[in-house]
Formats: sequence, structure tokens, C-alpha cells
Amino acid sequence: MLNYRFPRKQALFLINDVVGVPKPVGGADNDELDAEMLAAIFDEAARFGENLLAPSNRQGDLEPAKLTPDGVQETSGFADIYHQFCEAGWPSLAGDPEYGGQGLPNLLSVATNEIWQSSNLAWALCPLLTSGVIEALGVHGTEELKTLWLEKVTSGEWTGTMNLTEPDAGSDLAALKSRAVPQGDHYLITGQKIYITWGDHRMAENIVHLVLARLPDAPVGVKGISLFLVPKYLLDEQGRPGKPNDLRALAVEHKMGIHGSPTCVMSYGDNGGAVGYLVGEPHQGLACMFTMMNSARQAVGLQGLGIAERAYQAARDYARERVQGTLADGSRVTIINHPDVRRMLTQMLACCEAMRAFAYEAAAEVDRARAAEGDERKRREARVALYTPLVKGWMTELAQEVCSLSMQVHGGMGYIEETGVAQLYRDARILPIYEGTTGIQALDLIGRKIAADQGAALGDLFAEIDAAIDTCSLAPAVLSDGLREALAQSRRCVDGLMARAKADPAAPAAGSVNLMLLLGYLCGGWMLLRSSQRAAEHEQKGEDQAFWQTRQQVASAYAEQLLGRCSSLAQAAAAGSTTLMAIDEEQF
Amino acid sequence: MLNYRFPRKQALFLINDVVGVPKPVGGADNDELDAEMLAAIFDEAARFGENLLAPSNRQGDLEPAKLTPDGVQETSGFADIYHQFCEAGWPSLAGDPEYGGQGLPNLLSVATNEIWQSSNLAWALCPLLTSGVIEALGVHGTEELKTLWLEKVTSGEWTGTMNLTEPDAGSDLAALKSRAVPQGDHYLITGQKIYITWGDHRMAENIVHLVLARLPDAPVGVKGISLFLVPKYLLDEQGRPGKPNDLRALAVEHKMGIHGSPTCVMSYGDNGGAVGYLVGEPHQGLACMFTMMNSARQAVGLQGLGIAERAYQAARDYARERVQGTLADGSRVTIINHPDVRRMLTQMLACCEAMRAFAYEAAAEVDRARAAEGDERKRREARVALYTPLVKGWMTELAQEVCSLSMQVHGGMGYIEETGVAQLYRDARILPIYEGTTGIQALDLIGRKIAADQGAALGDLFAEIDAAIDTCSLAPAVLSDGLREALAQSRRCVDGLMARAKADPAAPAAGSVNLMLLLGYLCGGWMLLRSSQRAAEHEQKGEDQAFWQTRQQVASAYAEQLLGRCSSLAQAAAAGSTTLMAIDEEQF
Repeated sequence: MLNYRFPRKQALFLINDVVGVPKPVGGADNDELDAEMLAAIFDEAARFGENLLAPSNRQGDLEPAKLTPDGVQETSGFADIYHQFCEAGWPSLAGDPEYGGQGLPNLLSVATNEIWQSSNLAWALCPLLTSGVIEALGVHGTEELKTLWLEKVTSGEWTGTMNLTEPDAGSDLAALKSRAVPQGDHYLITGQKIYITWGDHRMAENIVHLVLARLPDAPVGVKGISLFLVPKYLLDEQGRPGKPNDLRALAVEHKMGIHGSPTCVMSYGDNGGAVGYLVGEPHQGLACMFTMMNSARQAVGLQGLGIAERAYQAARDYARERVQGTLADGSRVTIINHPDVRRMLTQMLACCEAMRAFAYEAAAEVDRARAAEGDERKRREARVALYTPLVKGWMTELAQEVCSLSMQVHGGMGYIEETGVAQLYRDARILPIYEGTTGIQALDLIGRKIAADQGAALGDLFAEIDAAIDTCSLAPAVLSDGLREALAQSRRCVDGLMARAKADPAAPAAGSVNLMLLLGYLCGGWMLLRSSQRAAEHEQKGEDQAFWQTRQQVASAYAEQLLGRCSSLAQAAAAGSTTLMAIDEEQF
Repeated sequence: MLNYRFPRKQALFLINDVVGVPKPVGGADNDELDAEMLAAIFDEAARFGENLLAPSNRQGDLEPAKLTPDGVQETSGFADIYHQFCEAGWPSLAGDPEYGGQGLPNLLSVATNEIWQSSNLAWALCPLLTSGVIEALGVHGTEELKTLWLEKVTSGEWTGTMNLTEPDAGSDLAALKSRAVPQGDHYLITGQKIYITWGDHRMAENIVHLVLARLPDAPVGVKGISLFLVPKYLLDEQGRPGKPNDLRALAVEHKMGIHGSPTCVMSYGDNGGAVGYLVGEPHQGLACMFTMMNSARQAVGLQGLGIAERAYQAARDYARERVQGTLADGSRVTIINHPDVRRMLTQMLACCEAMRAFAYEAAAEVDRARAAEGDERKRREARVALYTPLVKGWMTELAQEVCSLSMQVHGGMGYIEETGVAQLYRDARILPIYEGTTGIQALDLIGRKIAADQGAALGDLFAEIDAAIDTCSLAPAVLSDGLREALAQSRRCVDGLMARAKADPAAPAAGSVNLMLLLGYLCGGWMLLRSSQRAAEHEQKGEDQAFWQTRQQVASAYAEQLLGRCSSLAQAAAAGSTTLMAIDEEQF
């Protein structure tokens, strides 16, 4: 079995010294959230993840969730862990205190979420999706809806799902066909939804489905979609789950990975219509959906970090133990001493550190936006919006590489299922697909986040990175120099694409994925620049030298091994669509 | 089920116009191998692959080979296909006519092998490994060994395996422990071997194991390894399989992919010793092994092309049919019309074409070397040796990307096992691991193939590419310009690494994988340059315009989307080992 240890020291360093502890909003005040309390929370979370959750990961792979005549039965042992998870209060960490939440910063919720994702990604999808539901209800739900549903979802007693996709409507939600017909104080929902993560299970006493559907008078396209809360069990007069609603799981998909997460085909209204309640305004479902999607997208990006970190640790542990290679004197060495294995491990470590720092920065920006007002709030919200596709798109793609390198370090052993790395490799591959594929993230980035404000939010970020390069004078020169070049390439690339769009309208879309990855590497480098600056400051104080030196070496390695990719990404992004679109469809 | 069609027209174009038909040696003379005969061979091979072999691919995944008390039982249906394969004469295509082979060029064998690999990679591993045995016996076997064994292996009636790895000796064969004790005219072999592909099965009436082991007086390390032929069944006086030898499969590994290929733990000599016959000279096993390994390495590179081609076709077929995206007028489009999907498909197509052209060039060079004499032969052999790690290392890594892009084009559907792309993705992942990992290929390249002759063979290749850029005046400028730059980067990178090695001895090893990929992209671009030149010449003749234009567009797309990677690879390769090796082992 693969061991797992949360890199607690590095995480605390990032929060305390690099990103900064955000001010909690409407909950515990900042004084309470000191370094000691932070460390205590991490200790508890790490204990839960390492000792209880991580050992269950393989069971989910071996014994997938399955459909029974009474609905979906999840992997054995998962329910018990889930109950302990709720009892310990983990789901409600960043929740609204008015509905039973602990009001701690989003950053803390994100940082602990890494632990759940590293430990058991398939299982951790359940609270991940529930968080999206909490978010959507909190922003768009009426007081009545919140009173009835939000507290139980915040505590984790009830879980949540997102029902968007239909067989004919995936990335293209305009094609959505599910219907909602008003009836008294509620609606009757009919339709089929696919790819519904944790769409059914027995871990919780109720499941709150958020379902996109069309009202009878709805305009065509995405402007005619509304969001409904459709519970598995209707509530009785005491607000307890009572009569089953008219919905069921029709099938559980047989997937390449995340076997422990039931991916359901859901049917609503086979017997006349499932009772649902409108969330937000009629026909404004897309906006509500984006509230939950944006939270889920950042969380899926974090899944990339979570699984990459575990894959890295597996490779490191193996490389420390596996003896292979004979020196001239006949003595043998562990493979961690081979330069190419070192290269792979260092690259993996650099990816994980860069991803973690960037995910924390993005999470903290959510807190900062909530605490801000007026123009600053708008500016910070725009920054969060800009970060979201980068966190999701870049980090989930990078996770593929880290998991693949982990298998490569293991050699033939990695390809054998019993070793456990193969599961990580299979599990990870869903990440650039669900919650919007990499291509969808890239279109979101270049369309809604860059072109829509004429690059203002991105310009802000560029200026901040520019300033950081000047400020972080103790960071390795190879990184500062590399970042300066990557920043120039990024600016040229964005300007070039925008200018080119007039003559070649498909150019931004054709270059979008490469641009997104370019900006991802830029942001990762920026975060490691800040991290290495703080580490150098610590090193000067003379304590714990090896730890602080390693942070700087990792930053150098990122510059040496990864940052150069910016130039090739910029080149590919700038190429335009002419060649691609000119090829005759029949000739493919 | 995934369809598969061999890209016959493109393959014929490459052989007839780009690479050239090699002179067969010792067999059918060149006059017989005209364009018509070539086309007829491809037609037959394509029919076998497309109609018979390709439909069996999924069965291998669903019903893996398994160990029974009577040895290993392969997937149902595989044996029948194998017998038809042998009856049609496919195994003996390039074999020595003296031992029943057809004496056709190696290039033809390689080109048809792509079809088997695209159709059913797990199954096709069996003839692939057998080819390595034929090669080794042909070069290193005594007349007696050849007379007894080679004909039956050439015809495919008996299959072959390569037994190198032991639990403690993978990449590091110096640590090998299996023993061989002389007894009369043979040896008694004892030891355990792991990862033995098609180590046992019932498709053939005998299995010829080539086993590395140590003689009693063997020097330590790799200079004390000898190679033995150890049959599953000993031959009776008529040369027919008789008494079972003292060997057996102990286990079949449970792998992430290629389930249809039994990966066996083999035990030799549990009851005193398995009878084996020395192949080549005592203690010269490594040289014999390299003969079979080099053949197998090029073949595994080709597996990368084979599975990439099938993954590409799956994505293309899906993208042509899947409707997603609504235009302003309400009409809907197939996803092949989306620029980012186009980008992915074109990238996949460009990769496949570049890999195919390069694999053909490398295969033809084997034929050219065999036909040459004196210095020219030496020069061509050095070129083959240089190509081998590039074909294996670069193509198997590129195959991962193509298979991953195929899944990405499929979106959520790709992650569902029933679609079939997930199997390709899982199957492909073994390719950069077996027959020497990517890291081992890269060390072979930089050590034995570049440093050992002070870059002479590589310099030859660079000069040829240089000349081609000048000659191919009709090729797209974006490719010629890109190649000129990539060539300059490659030269600088190699020179830099060699110079750096004095002060930083681990620098070449640390940079070797990035260098190998850099040279791979360079060679791929060189081949597409030549292909686009010929295509432009054809286009000028006025026939079949769309086909010839597409070849040129694909070459442009390669330059726009992929060739830029050379700069980042060169940068990473040149970084040296200082940062990597400086990190304290405990700090990982």
C-alpha cells in the first residue's frame, strides 16, 4: 500500500509566510486564527487523512460502487469514514456560521481539502460536490430554502450533487432538454442526467440534487435554463427526510478510474415528475450553475495537486528503497541517486510545490474578495475569475505528467496494479475532463476572463508578477530571469492573439489551451519566486537550513526544467487557426 | 467497438516516394518488389488486421490471460487468429530464406507490424518477441541450433520469449543471479525471471525461451552473462516437441493494461535444472541480448505508432459524429469543427505521420546496412544504432500524448471503459517502460551512440538534415525555418552537454531524456519535410489535390504546434545536474 503524509511544514510555510492568513468573514475573528491554531487544524486533518482515509483508497478501486435494486451501494467502509468526517466537523470548516458553519477562511478549507484528495480522491468527490451545493444555495437560495436545507448540507449530514450533463448536452448546455413544470409551491422535474458524481449512495440520509432544467416558457439556448433543488427524499413537517422523491439512479458507469465514486445516470420523473424547488430566478440557472461550478473547478484543480502529491510521494519512497545500478567498486545504489531519477523526482516536487502555492493564492484571493468592498472587491473578484480556469486547467494537466512520472520511476512495478501507482494514474485522468474539459477552461479563460475586459484583469496580474520579480531579490537568478522572459512571452502572446483575431477569428480558440498552460507555468513560477524569497530570508536566520535551501533549489529546478516550456507554448498558441481549419474534414 | 483502417495510401506514399524501397538481401530480388506487389501485400495485411485482429482487441482486455494448473491459458479466440496469421505467412515475411523466411526487406516487416500493433497490441506482442528470438538465433546461433530451431520459429509454429529481468535485476543486468551449469552437450538452468511477455500460452506447440544466466566461472557484472536457448518442450529425435522441460510460469501479473498479453513470472529448474543450449560465446550474453533487444526496441517504438494511430482514428471518428455546440442561428455542429478539437486532431495526425515516416526510415536503414559493405556498412550500422533509442524513446513517449488527446477529444465518454479509448490509454502506458525505460534509452543514446564516437554518427545525421532543408524547397517555410532552428539548438545542446561533462560529470545523464526527445522532434520534422516536398511535387502534377495538400498542411501543423518544443527541451537538457543532485536526499 502507498503511504501518504501531508507536507504539513511546507503548507504552513506557504500560508504563514507566502500567501498570508486571510481574515475570516463573519465568523471567528483573525486573532483566533493564529499560527498555533492553524498548525493544530492541520495536525488533525493530516491525522484523519493519513490514518483513516488514505488506507481506504485501494478498496474503492477494488470494490467499485454498484447499482442494487435499492439504489447505489458505495464501497464498504466508505460510509463509516464519512460519518467520522462529519462528526469531526470537516465539511463545515468554511461554512456560513448562520447555518452551522465554522466561518473559517476558504483558504483553510482548500488546504485541508488537499489532504482528502491525496488520501482518497474518489471518496473525497462526495464532499467536494457538496461544497458546490452549499456555495450555490448560500448565494442564490431564498431564506426558506436555506433554512430547510443549508444547515444539513453544511454539516455533511446530507450530501449534494450537480446535475448538468445530458446525453446530448455536455459542454454545450444550450442543448439541455430536462423540463420543470410549476405545480403549487414547487415544480415537477422530468429528464435524464448523466455523469452524476455520487448521484446515489447510502452514506447520508438524504441527497440534495441541484438540477438544471427548462421551464415551459423558457427561451431556447442557455438563457432558458433554470436551477432546481431536487432532494432524494422529500422533507416531512419536522424537516426530516420522509417520502422518496420521483428519481432514481438508472446505472453506474464502468470507468477507467475513480471506481469508488459512483458516476450515475439519473432519471427524474419516471412516475409523473420529481418535486423540485427553484434556486435563484427563473432562466438564471446558468449564473447559479457558475457559482457552484467555479467552486468545483478550483476544487478539481486542487484534486490535481492532491493526486500529484501522492504520486510524488510514492515515487520518492520507491526511489529511496529500490536498489539498481552497480558502481565500479561493485557496490549498489538506490535509484534516487541516478541523475535521471533525480530529474523526475525534482520535477514532480517542483510541480507539486508550484501547484500548492498557486492553489493557496487563488483560495486566499476568494477570502480577500469577500472581505473587500467597492472597487477593490470587483478587482479581486475579477482576479478570482481569472485564476479559476488556470487552477482547473493547468493543474489538472500537470497532474497527468506527475502521475505518469511516478509510474516511470517505478518502472515495470508501476504497471502492476498491486503497487497502487496505476490506480493514481487511472484516477487522475478524469481531472482534465470533468467540471469542464481543459478546452472549455481555456475558452472560458480567453473569452470571459481576458477578451471580455480587454485584458484588464490579466494586465493587473502581469503587473503584480513584474513587481514581484523586482522585489524578490533573494530568489534564484535563473528563476527571476526565466520569469521575466516568460512574462514578456505571455504579454506578446496575448496581445498577438487579440490582434490576430480580427483577421483570423478562430485564432484565440485555436491557441487557447496553449495560452492557458503558458499562463499556468508563469503563475507557478511566480509563486515559487515568492516562496524562494521567503525561504532565503528564513535561511539567513540560520535555522533549519536544509529545508529552506531545498525550497530555493526546487524553485531553481522549476526554472531549469519547466519554465522554458513557456516559449514553446507561446509559439504554438500564436500559430493561429489557418492551418488547422484549412485541412479538409474528409482528409482526417 | 473502435473501428480501425490502416492508412494504406499514406504508407505506400512513404515507402515509394519518401523512404524508398530497399533492396531485399538474399531473397526475392528488387524487380519482384514493385509498387504493385507492395500494394498487394498491404492490402492483405490490412484485411487481416482490420477484419480479424482488430475486433479481438477488446476481448483481450475483458478476459485476460490466466494461470491454470496446466500453465497459462490465453484469451479465447487468440489462438485461432494466431494460427491463421502463421498460415498466411506473416511471421516469416523478412526471415532468412535458408530457414523458411521470405527474404523481404525489414521495412516491409515493420510496415506490416504497424497493422498488427494497431489492431491488437497485446496479441501482437507475441510475434514481436518471437522476431527478436529469430534475430538473435540468426546472428549468434550455431548451425546446429539454427537447423533445429530457427525454421519453426520463423514460421511462427513455435513462439519465442526474452528472459532478462529478475526481481533484483531490471535495468541493472549486472545484478543477474540465474545460473547455468554445463552438463554434456547442454546446460542446466536455474533461476527466476519476471516480466516475461507471453512466457506461457497454448497458441503454439512449443515456446523458445532465450534466457540470460551466469556460468559457474563467470566474471561478476555484465561481463559474466551468457545467453541460453531453453525450450518449453525438449525435442525428440524427429525434432518434434516431446518431454516438458523443467520450467513453468509461476504467476501472471495483474497489469493496468495489455491484459491479453500474459506477463509471466517464470521459474527455471525447480526440479534440478532446465535444459538449455548456449547461444553465442560464453560470457557474451549481453551482445546477443542487444541483438534481440535492438530489434525489439525498434518494434516497441512502432507499437507507439500503432496504438497512436488507432487512438487518432477513434478520436477522429468520434469528432465527426459527436454534435456539440450551437451556432447563433440555432444549428448545431460536430465537434471536429471546433478549433481546439481541430488542434488536437491535427496534432495527433502530425505525430502519427512523423512517427510513421521516421519508423520507416529507421527500418529501411537496417535494410540498407545489410546491403552495404565496408565503410558504408559501418556508417549505416552506426546510424541504425543511433536511431534505435530515438524510435523507442521518442515514439513511445509521443504515443502517450496521442492516446491522452484521444481521450480528451472523447470527453467523459473516453473515461468510460465501454468506449474503448480507455483501453488504448492503459495499454499504451507500458511502452515507455518495457524493453528499456525512456531513461535507459536516453542513456544508451547519449553514452553508446553519441559520446562513444564523439558525436560522429550524430554529426552525419545533422549534416543530412541540413542538406535536406536546402533541397526540399517546396516544403512549407514554417517547417524549413523551424527545422533550421531546431537543428542549431540540437547542435548547441549536444556540444554544450559534452563540454559541460568535464566539470559536471552527471550533466549528460541528467539532460539525456530531454536531449532524446529534442532529437526525436528534430527527426520527425525532418521526415515531414521530406514527405511534404514529395507531396508538393505530386500536387504539381494535378491529381488527388486534397490528399497532397493535407500532407503539406500536416507538416506545417507539426512545425506550428510541436517543433517549438525543441527550444524548451534544449533548455532543460542543458541545465546540468547541479541543482538536481544538490538537493538533500532526506528533503525529498
